[in-house]
Formats: sequence, structure tokens, C-alpha cells
Amino acid sequence: MAEKSLSGQVQQKKASGWAARDTCGVLSPFDFYRRVTGEKDVTIKVLYCGICRSDLHMLKNDWGISTYPLVPGHEVIGVVTEVGSKVEKFKVGDKVGAGFLVGSCHSCHNCANNFENYCPKLIGIDSGYSDIIVVDEHFTVRIPDSLPLDACAPMLCAGISVYSPLRSHGLDKPGMHVGVVGLGGLGHMAVKFAKAMGVKVTVISTSPSKKKDAIERLGADTFLFSHDPDEMQSAVSTLDGIIDTVTGFHPLLPLLGLLKYNGKLVIVGGPDKLELPVPPLLFGAKAVVGCFVGGMKETQDMLNFAAEHNITADIETISIDNANTALERLEKGDVRYRFVIDVGNTLKSSS
Amino acid sequence: MAEKSLSGQVQQKKASGWAARDTCGVLSPFDFYRRVTGEKDVTIKVLYCGICRSDLHMLKNDWGISTYPLVPGHEVIGVVTEVGSKVEKFKVGDKVGAGFLVGSCHSCHNCANNFENYCPKLIGIDSGYSDIIVVDEHFTVRIPDSLPLDACAPMLCAGISVYSPLRSHGLDKPGMHVGVVGLGGLGHMAVKFAKAMGVKVTVISTSPSKKKDAIERLGADTFLFSHDPDEMQSAVSTLDGIIDTVTGFHPLLPLLGLLKYNGKLVIVGGPDKLELPVPPLLFGAKAVVGCFVGGMKETQDMLNFAAEHNITADIETISIDNANTALERLEKGDVRYRFVIDVGNTLKSSS
Repeated sequence: MAEKSLSGQVQQKKASGWAARDTCGVLSPFDFYRRVTGEKDVTIKVLYCGICRSDLHMLKNDWGISTYPLVPGHEVIGVVTEVGSKVEKFKVGDKVGAGFLVGSCHSCHNCANNFENYCPKLIGIDSGYSDIIVVDEHFTVRIPDSLPLDACAPMLCAGISVYSPLRSHGLDKPGMHVGVVGLGGLGHMAVKFAKAMGVKVTVISTSPSKKKDAIERLGADTFLFSHDPDEMQSAVSTLDGIIDTVTGFHPLLPLLGLLKYNGKLVIVGGPDKLELPVPPLLFGAKAVVGCFVGGMKETQDMLNFAAEHNITADIETISIDNANTALERLEKGDVRYRFVIDVGNTLKSSS
Repeated sequence: MAEKSLSGQVQQKKASGWAARDTCGVLSPFDFYRRVTGEKDVTIKVLYCGICRSDLHMLKNDWGISTYPLVPGHEVIGVVTEVGSKVEKFKVGDKVGAGFLVGSCHSCHNCANNFENYCPKLIGIDSGYSDIIVVDEHFTVRIPDSLPLDACAPMLCAGISVYSPLRSHGLDKPGMHVGVVGLGGLGHMAVKFAKAMGVKVTVISTSPSKKKDAIERLGADTFLFSHDPDEMQSAVSTLDGIIDTVTGFHPLLPLLGLLKYNGKLVIVGGPDKLELPVPPLLFGAKAVVGCFVGGMKETQDMLNFAAEHNITADIETISIDNANTALERLEKGDVRYRFVIDVGNTLKSSS
């Protein structure tokens, strides 16, 4: 697929995807170029790509950092079609995944400790709604054979975003009690991972309609309707930690009240600003911390853990032609719990 | 001093102090009663009492929890004049201190781990602006012989409020770099303790006039004028932790920017609410935590550490007659760095 440009200098690889052309965020077919497979790169034929809520934000330039045309997507599952001369971990035909992280300095303290996600020179990228991607093998993970490829895609962002804080903040000890705020793409993965770690789980949600699903299907131990003061009061000072997946503005005071002394509220999404109530921090020695996806070793650990415990995401698979409709539904919260685009069978390559 | 009431049932001890009668917060002489010395109590003749900013808040009922008449004061130094039959640690004549904590359950997880300050049944008290106090020996600490009694008083609140977070959040390792926000009663103690621990200290203040004092007298390594964007920018990502002693509303964004990856902003005062910027938490794995005074073992450790390193508070000693003026000056920030009332020599007992 590699080709030389007319000048003979630039080598590029044709790719086909779906892109938004402006902040309306409407997707349509778009042809572009990828770099050719570098010596440490793998080229991946994309089979599935999850739709993350941040795709919506990027498509509409909510964060002021989008450039157009914009091909979204960073929950990629596929098969290796080409490897560079120095690639050691993968061979053609391997089933692999790639997420938001695609580059880092490899020399800072964070990189040295497998936290590339906090490297000051971190390179993150979208563009998974396309037929091929080219990724450094360091930022590529192996998909265990037992995991279904479609339901595995959301793990590359939603999964690692909740697995990482459970591990890195020590909320993974059997017998602990953890709250999960918001039962969406991230939240439902948090319930599954925490339960598999032996942790007692309470889901806290503004949607009482999700109670049955949370307990009966996802395995949560209890459910709190966050707008019911009595329910919330009954659970004061019971949680060792909280994974807060809510992306919009929401009050932290009731959540901090649920924490035991020394408890941690881990924000993994959230808006630009929240209101911080100070007394619960002081008198309960409580903490509000942030966590952003995870490192590559942690991502592979998560997939291996998922395979061991038969954990996958609950998904609704769609064709690329339905991506715009899916994004509209996602905006309304109408998905249980993640859309995954069947890229391999529905996206037509121009080349 | 103990006496029986007319009924013969209630035993009380006369005490003289200065109290506010209402939310105007103006202090004047006031006679009242203390409990008699219980079997585990020590009675202390008060020699010195520091004036804490929270005395101001209590006097004016800023927190809605004050009852009048109100005798403020929780930075008490004195000498033991009587001990209960089961007191083991102290004898008459011992030089001792008492702070805000005077009772806890002694059986919860926090009490068992010497964090009585986070006991759900914590009993805190003011009333140090008086001639005697009666305190359970568990909540009484020994003042090392080498420490001057007057300059030691502020350690019982200002000192422990910054010593505790330096220790409990691991910001006490030689070679670390810690920021101290606000150079008042708490801040100046934070600089002294952190320097004695071998930590590099940067003072961050809205008062450039404090730079000379911070560096030349208190021993801080650097000083940042927080309203100078260039100065603040030059120190981005340099601090392992920050002790934030500012009691009023202030922006956290510039402070979070000063922290390295995984850094902690420890709030030890603060207003009811602050604005929490979320992206620095996410992308830097940073934390905002709270800390409230310290446990009794930690308080004794602090005093021993202070004696070992010749650390005392910088104080301005006043007579009780000047307490109202001192409170007015404190409200304007006109004190370097703590008022201490010479109770022993200036407060007249009615009995």
C-alpha cells in the first residue's frame, strides 16, 4: 500500500475514513493518507472502533482544540497487516488494539514507570473511524484470544479509564467498597472490573431506571438514586473510594459525604470546573484526584484481567453509515452502554 | 478550688476568662465554671494562649456554630496544678500544652491509629483565654524544656496544622520541593518545619513585601508573588506538594500548575467552597486533599521535633487587655506571625 509521491521524497499510505468537515460535527466519507509503516510500527486493518463521548466533544470543538477535517475514534481493534523491521512484539495476523496514546518521550520519570499517559510529551490521537491505522508497537496491545473483538473495543478507552484508577488508587482490594457515579460507557466497565476484583460496588446515578440493570445484569451490590436525599443519607461514610465518570457539572458535596475518612473521589471525566466543598476535605481528610486513561502496561494488564474474568463491554454494534445517528443518540444518553462501529464490514475503502 | 453547689450534687471549679457576649465579638472579663479534675484529667494554670484566625470566625459566628458567652482560644500553654487519681503521664508542675482536641471515642479506626482528629465523635473546644482549663491527659502534651513557653503556644494549632500534612502526605523527604501558600501563622510554621525536614521551600504569596522576611529570616529558598504571571509560569511543574494556608477564596488553577505530576495540594484552611479546575487533575494525576490539625501522638512528635531543631513561632506577646485590638489587627493581616496572650501575667482571676 505504500507509495512514493511525485517528488520521490514522501512515502504515504492511502486511508479511508469518515470525517467531520466543521464544528457541525457531521461525519461523511473522507480519504486521507497515513505514514508508511516505520521500523517500529505496525499497520492495523481496523475491524471495530468504539464511540467515546469525547468523540462528540472533539467533533463539535467543545475543547477548542479540534482541527478539520476530523476523523474521530480512539477505541480501535484490528488485525496486523504489516510490521516494521524492528517490531518485536507483533506479527502479521495478530489481533491488536490501540487507544488514545500513540507517542511519548520514553525517557521521563513517568515513561520509565509505565505511565506514558502522564508524559509531558504525550502524543494522543483520534482517527479510528477509518480502514487502517499505523501505530508504534509500544502503543499497541494484544487482544487475548478469548475476548470477542467487537465488545473489546471500548476497553481501549472506557475500560482503561476506570481500570487504571481502581488499581493506581488502591481501590482494588477484596472487601473494599467503591462507588461508581454515572452508569454509561465508563461506569458500566467500572462495575464489572471492581466486582471482578472482589470489591463491593454501589452505583450512584440520576437515572433510577438503571437500578435493575446495575444490580441484576452488571452485578452491582447496591444502587443509590442521587436525587433522593434519604437514600444518599443512608450511605454516608460507607465508601472507600468513588470513580466519578460524570462528564457534566454535578455537585461533589453529596459524593464526598459518601466517602469514609481518607476516602478518594477519583474524577475520570468531568467538565472544566466543578465546585469544591472544602469542609469535607478538611474534617474527613478526603481527597479529590484525577486520572486520565492509563499506561500501556496497565492497558495490557487490563485486557489480560478481562480475559481471565470474562469481562467485555456491553455494546450496540452499528455500521459506519449509522455513525451520525449513533452520535445523536449518545448525546441524549440513549445507549447501553457503548456504540461500536463495525468498521471492517461496513466502511468502504477507496483504494 | 473544687466546691460543692448548694444541692451538694454538682462539683465545679471557678474560672475567669474573657468572653464575647454576642456576634460583635468584643471580649470582656467573664467568670464561669470548669468541671473539677476528673480521674484522668489534669488541671492547667494557663500561662499563654495564641490567637488563631478561627477565634475571629468563632467570635463573629461566621460558621453559624457559635454560642455565647464565648471564650475563645485553643493554643494553650500552662503548668499542671492538679492531676486526677488515674493520671499517668503528668504531675503537678509539668509544663504542658492543649489544643483544639479534648475528646474522642478512643475505639474507632482513627482513634486506634492516633488520628483522634478524624474521630467521628471528636470533641473540640475553645476557651483558652482563661486562667485555668481542665483536660483529659490524653489530650495534653508535654512541652520540651528547651522551648520558650510563649513562642510555643501557636504550635498547638498553627504548628500541628502544617506539621501533620507534611508528615502524613509524605512531603517531609529531604530533597523534595514544597510550596507554602500564604505566609501567616500557619504558613510561617510550615516554612520552618519543612526546612528542618530538609525540604526545599517556595513561598507563594500575594504580598511581595513578605519576600525578604520569607527568605532571609524564615529560610525559604524562593518566593513567588502569586499575582505575577511570569514568576508563576517560571515555576510550573516544580513542586511535589503544596501546603495551602489561605483562608479566603483564591484560585486553585495557578497553584495546581506549580505541582509536578502526581503532586498534592493540601488545603489546611480555606473557605466553604473553592472552584476546582478539573483538567490539571486529570492530565497531571494531581490531587486536592484536606487536612485538619493532627492527632495527639503527632502533636507530641511535632513538639519534640521543634525542640530538636530549635523551632518556635514568631510571635508578638500581648496582655489580655489588648486582645480586642489584636483581633482587629489580625483581621487586617497586621501580625508577624502570631499574637500570643500573656494570660499568666495579665489576666486577673476573680477567685
